[in-house]
Amino acid sequence: MKPNVEIALRLLHRIQFTDDALAIANPVLRDSFESTTAGPVRVLPFVDEGVLQAFPDFSARLQGYADAHGDRMTLATDVRPIVAGEACKNDWQHVEQVLSAINHHDIDRQSYILAVGGGAVLDCVGFAASIAHRGIRLIRMPSTTLAQGDAGIGVKNGVNAYGKKNFLGTFAVPHAVINDISLLAGLSSRQWRSGFSESVKVALLKDAALFDRIAADAEAIAAMSFERGVPIIERSAELHVKHIAEGGDPFELRNARPLDFGHWSAHRLETMSDYTLPHGEAVAIGIALDTAYARQVDLLGEHDAKRIFECLAKLGFELANPLLEDVESLWVGLKEFREHLGGQLTLTLPTAIGRTVDVHEIDREHLERAIKQLTADK
Amino acid sequence: MKPNVEIALRLLHRIQFTDDALAIANPVLRDSFESTTAGPVRVLPFVDEGVLQAFPDFSARLQGYADAHGDRMTLATDVRPIVAGEACKNDWQHVEQVLSAINHHDIDRQSYILAVGGGAVLDCVGFAASIAHRGIRLIRMPSTTLAQGDAGIGVKNGVNAYGKKNFLGTFAVPHAVINDISLLAGLSSRQWRSGFSESVKVALLKDAALFDRIAADAEAIAAMSFERGVPIIERSAELHVKHIAEGGDPFELRNARPLDFGHWSAHRLETMSDYTLPHGEAVAIGIALDTAYARQVDLLGEHDAKRIFECLAKLGFELANPLLEDVESLWVGLKEFREHLGGQLTLTLPTAIGRTVDVHEIDREHLERAIKQLTADK
Repeated sequence: MKPNVEIALRLLHRIQFTDDALAIANPVLRDSFESTTAGPVRVLPFVDEGVLQAFPDFSARLQGYADAHGDRMTLATDVRPIVAGEACKNDWQHVEQVLSAINHHDIDRQSYILAVGGGAVLDCVGFAASIAHRGIRLIRMPSTTLAQGDAGIGVKNGVNAYGKKNFLGTFAVPHAVINDISLLAGLSSRQWRSGFSESVKVALLKDAALFDRIAADAEAIAAMSFERGVPIIERSAELHVKHIAEGGDPFELRNARPLDFGHWSAHRLETMSDYTLPHGEAVAIGIALDTAYARQVDLLGEHDAKRIFECLAKLGFELANPLLEDVESLWVGLKEFREHLGGQLTLTLPTAIGRTVDVHEIDREHLERAIKQLTADK
Repeated sequence: MKPNVEIALRLLHRIQFTDDALAIANPVLRDSFESTTAGPVRVLPFVDEGVLQAFPDFSARLQGYADAHGDRMTLATDVRPIVAGEACKNDWQHVEQVLSAINHHDIDRQSYILAVGGGAVLDCVGFAASIAHRGIRLIRMPSTTLAQGDAGIGVKNGVNAYGKKNFLGTFAVPHAVINDISLLAGLSSRQWRSGFSESVKVALLKDAALFDRIAADAEAIAAMSFERGVPIIERSAELHVKHIAEGGDPFELRNARPLDFGHWSAHRLETMSDYTLPHGEAVAIGIALDTAYARQVDLLGEHDAKRIFECLAKLGFELANPLLEDVESLWVGLKEFREHLGGQLTLTLPTAIGRTVDVHEIDREHLERAIKQLTADK
């Protein structure tokens, strides 16, 4: 027989921004369920406890929306709350909770799972959805700036195991992503701010004009201006999705993963903090650290480095985290990141705003100097 | 932003038949590891206990092969035995065993997992490999007729949960599949025969000439003639892979799964027997049942039905399994199969040798008559 056969897949990644997705007149959610002749589709809803606290009427409104659109959708059960934040990724029982509900409610591959929440909840529910019956259709409604601009619109999921972040997970294109900006009103200012570190990241990698906008509006954004902030999140999402679709390697089967700028130390800092440090804040520190390192090894000029530090600081990020002082532990993180990437280390470093270079090793001495700079500066 | 983005993936499915893959002069295994500048790749080997029993020198020969090809590969650890048969899919501890070894030996996305064994072991190890670090490269060496012609060359994996077969699993294209026909010499005649039910299945669906060959050689095959049997397995594998690659829906995102002919009852009978009935034998019964049903509802003529029953009987399959008499329980299996497919039931039934039709419901009265025919005939 012919030894090599190509398996070609074309998966549609449907992403939409909308406002107040549960308003009965808003068709975005109903339209994301494929119309079938067999009647309404069955939907199993999981919602982040943080969303339920911020919007006590969320469950009732979702039920009202489903009732009003009963020709297209029916809820298989009441809303299932999922513990907020990294906690849901740190204990297999939360994956089990989702799997058990899928089993109990006879959710099949023509049914849908609706996951509403921050990136961690989307990761946990999405992982369970991707392995039940070899993949149940998932509709994500990201509820944070971080998830709407970055985590929630990607094609990955994952939970932590063996003390390693995202040790278990899959690549899986969700059936649809609905970015409901009204959900952002439920965020604390710390949560709101958190997502903009990923915007700074993607701007530094791909879009100098976007960086200029963030830098100019950083104080307004820090003060929770939706008018200034939401367009930044939209643009971040667009750049992120474009990278996945057009980068040539959506499931990361090769080496390069340039959207991981700032992430090697971010992942490690999260683990070191026992996940008390939110991902977005860890990414801000990670960006600052890689920026300082790029400056130390003379890849990046002083003026650009300063602009990056200032922008992050104006957004309200605290960069001089004491965890940075444990260089030995950070160094282990670099090894783990290499392993997670697979074998060869590839890190993206800035050479200017919107321009980058890939490097394959980090010099420990320069790294220590970069850390000193960050922790001494403040 | 643009609401719909297409994610395109092109995955190479590498499949080769070879003889004595562990002979040092045989390059097939070494060549399946991608050459890197970083030196030999690390390989974590899992082997079916049945293979280790049949070939007591298997581990030593694998180590010898790795030593001889040390420029390309190195074993991360001694061979890890995996319990044979469905047992490895019925208990999460076996998945955990694989995950834990991946963690312990720092296996990354540029490393490889080698899985040698029957379909169940490949399913269990493959599932774990597909969720660790979001997918470790997997090389499968199927050791049975069933796995070489069917299960081991597909793009699925899975383990059982909540009493449901393959409740957990993923679609994942293995890095390579090596069908080493020398491994078939380790099979009992019952195991050897078992894989030919899948050959009958694919022949009935797609290749009348293949069915004619199987029917003509059925007694020689039942007597374990490699000369007659191996070409049948090769042709089955070819048809199977062609269906996956060219069928337009490799990850089964839509309804039709015509290669599941005979499988709705087969899966159920396996569960009902507490997995003492091997998959291949269950499929033979499932084919016979769907054939009898197709005859009852007059989709299939008497002459063709008779040829199918005779071929299966000559291959040595016992079709009048007493479990068939529990119609109520079989009926539950039909519901579960519909659910696993997702919503709409689609079953493929023969209308002639090599010709089929899809049906979307099964009439219980005709099913009961078909069962009576099978269980009374013998």
